[in-house]
Amino acid sequence: MAKSCEIIAVGTELLLGEITNTDGAYIARALAKIGIHAFYQTTVGDNPARLAEVLERAASRADIIITTGGLGPTYDDLTKETIAKVFGKKLVRDAESLEHIRVFFEKRHRTMTPNNEKQADMPEGATIFRNLWGTAPACAFESGKNTVVMLPGPPDECYPMTDTYVIPYLMRYSDGVLTSRYIRVYGLGESAVENILRDKMIHAENPTLAPYAKSGSVLLRITAKTPDRESGMALCEPMVQEVLEILGDNAYEESAGGIAEFVSNLCRKKGKTMAFAESCTGGLVSKLITDLPGSSDVYLGGVCSYANSVKSGVLGIDPSLIEEKGAVSSEVAVKMAEGVRALIGADIGLGITGIAGPGGGSEEKPVGLVYVSVADEKHTVTKKFEFGNLRRSRERIRGDAAGSALDMIRKILMEEE
Amino acid sequence: MAKSCEIIAVGTELLLGEITNTDGAYIARALAKIGIHAFYQTTVGDNPARLAEVLERAASRADIIITTGGLGPTYDDLTKETIAKVFGKKLVRDAESLEHIRVFFEKRHRTMTPNNEKQADMPEGATIFRNLWGTAPACAFESGKNTVVMLPGPPDECYPMTDTYVIPYLMRYSDGVLTSRYIRVYGLGESAVENILRDKMIHAENPTLAPYAKSGSVLLRITAKTPDRESGMALCEPMVQEVLEILGDNAYEESAGGIAEFVSNLCRKKGKTMAFAESCTGGLVSKLITDLPGSSDVYLGGVCSYANSVKSGVLGIDPSLIEEKGAVSSEVAVKMAEGVRALIGADIGLGITGIAGPGGGSEEKPVGLVYVSVADEKHTVTKKFEFGNLRRSRERIRGDAAGSALDMIRKILMEEE
Repeated sequence: MAKSCEIIAVGTELLLGEITNTDGAYIARALAKIGIHAFYQTTVGDNPARLAEVLERAASRADIIITTGGLGPTYDDLTKETIAKVFGKKLVRDAESLEHIRVFFEKRHRTMTPNNEKQADMPEGATIFRNLWGTAPACAFESGKNTVVMLPGPPDECYPMTDTYVIPYLMRYSDGVLTSRYIRVYGLGESAVENILRDKMIHAENPTLAPYAKSGSVLLRITAKTPDRESGMALCEPMVQEVLEILGDNAYEESAGGIAEFVSNLCRKKGKTMAFAESCTGGLVSKLITDLPGSSDVYLGGVCSYANSVKSGVLGIDPSLIEEKGAVSSEVAVKMAEGVRALIGADIGLGITGIAGPGGGSEEKPVGLVYVSVADEKHTVTKKFEFGNLRRSRERIRGDAAGSALDMIRKILMEEE
Repeated sequence: MAKSCEIIAVGTELLLGEITNTDGAYIARALAKIGIHAFYQTTVGDNPARLAEVLERAASRADIIITTGGLGPTYDDLTKETIAKVFGKKLVRDAESLEHIRVFFEKRHRTMTPNNEKQADMPEGATIFRNLWGTAPACAFESGKNTVVMLPGPPDECYPMTDTYVIPYLMRYSDGVLTSRYIRVYGLGESAVENILRDKMIHAENPTLAPYAKSGSVLLRITAKTPDRESGMALCEPMVQEVLEILGDNAYEESAGGIAEFVSNLCRKKGKTMAFAESCTGGLVSKLITDLPGSSDVYLGGVCSYANSVKSGVLGIDPSLIEEKGAVSSEVAVKMAEGVRALIGADIGLGITGIAGPGGGSEEKPVGLVYVSVADEKHTVTKKFEFGNLRRSRERIRGDAAGSALDMIRKILMEEE
């Protein structure tokens, strides 16, 4: 029987909503992969009495307790002191941690004030996790039936420490790892996908098949539980292939990096380069591709043609065409794709023009209307999308447009195979 | 004495980390503004026994309980049923809600299946909040010393319903509103700002002065508690002016939209237009400005000159300059800013070139080195930044570069005053 976990986030700034707690979801995801489930997540302020109460309850209803936050140098960072008290541990100053903090300050030419020394205080007998991303070290210790892990709150420190130390430490309590593979589906609604795959979703056991988070597209998750990741990948394989076959060219297997990474990798494999001309997305597609390290291999650059003068002046689109058809039209999308391809000298050109809203819509051209065009050396493919139903926000419409545009590039690249 | 609140998020997908809970922070922020504080936030799965236990504890330690999620049509949406049981309320089908759901499906040409009807079941005597953003209505009711509010989970529905219904409903329990004003500081480190303002931070009472979230810049928050927003704004005013005066042109008062909104509004006020040439930020600055509705007034467009061929071919930079100085150099940043300004015909041109990492750095030009140049009709200002210390991620470096670039535009626009 796998162990259960409670994740406790400590910090008044979380309770006030000044910061969104993303550590909890990150840790929960990492734990789920090794078959450890969190049944509760609790957020509490920098208040020792309330934190102690929360810790005591967690100790009674969960095996593993993971806290985030409250390990810093200031007077209101009290997680360690409170945990030590609740679990009857003495805090002792760890010489190696102290040295690490000293060097950290020295390297950055900053003065180490005395309150920083308390960051090196650790529960006696704890396994100490060196913080290579900041100052406060993390740790884990056993106490009766409980395992207690303390992590720093800043995500820049918490995420890598979860992966580097906490998951390997907790592997002893795992009775098998969960391995997931993902299939992205564009151009088919959620209910259509569920209709097609319902039987498998209900009856498949190992691996399971389930719809996952969605936004302008559907993501399917295939998850296997096995002793290790390699056998999990293999156990998923037949289901992945079967679902891909059923859904045809609407679907592809996606990695954690999403459609932007998929398209980048495909371009790299085929030695193709891209250039984007964006109006309503205003640089978002370019941003998504350049979020990825090494994107300069496949992405040469682009033009944000927000004003019509840029569409004509830089991309060379005839102003009378814009006048006649409107800036948001399939004709202008085509000229944007072909124009930016020629201007930048890329293999693939993308053009996106639409109405992101909330203003600027009309009866004939409502908010959410987007034309996307993709041009390569052989042909130009153009599609019309309507993302405006369901009171969608500007952000959602732009996101959907960007994802759908990258999917069109994917299809053209995969067709050639 | 103001009432206290516990926010409970319901959903197994939250516990598994498949979705990050952003509702809790949103609601907490809205509550804090009316002086209602959440001392606990709890996340629990779609499990009636565990949810009931969490509700009972919340009822004993908080006055107001707000739940998010679990109001949908599927079999695992059990929040309403569990709450009704814990608080001894009967669920009755609300005819108006049912009609609203029916119309919602009809408008979208979707079939309303029978399980959708249960979304119209409401605790007897509850105040019902119509969901204009989806199907599941929300509600609030009183039970002994407790006020219970149920909200749908999807942020697209939860956020507007919090603002539209929940805050006005809970105003009866507010003993005064908190009004905050924000001052952004670029170009001074956090500890430098704290050193300058320490006395005020410690001793100011109403309004208070505190450092807020930070990323590549420092944000200061000035908060007053008064009977209404207008008197709160006025009470903050002397402190805002005093802090702005102390910090000089490094600081400005910022609205919720951040530096992008500040710069857009300033451009609009002065009738100025902008054009961006981005290398390492790859469209991010363009994306940030076009996130704002109505940005076409002030932003004409830009060029993402990722490849050197685009820097020379589109922006007209002499290839021998790039060869001699390197693509990441102040000289190239200047030519980018001036080149895109001329190409697009804008009042202000921006050029950004740097090394976002994680690869591509060298001893001489390390990861995080960024040159930003801003050109207007009178002059060109160029600055060198080093964002690479502290193991910063590619994302952080790009974000810091974008924020600092927009701040340089701000300074140029404000200098003219």
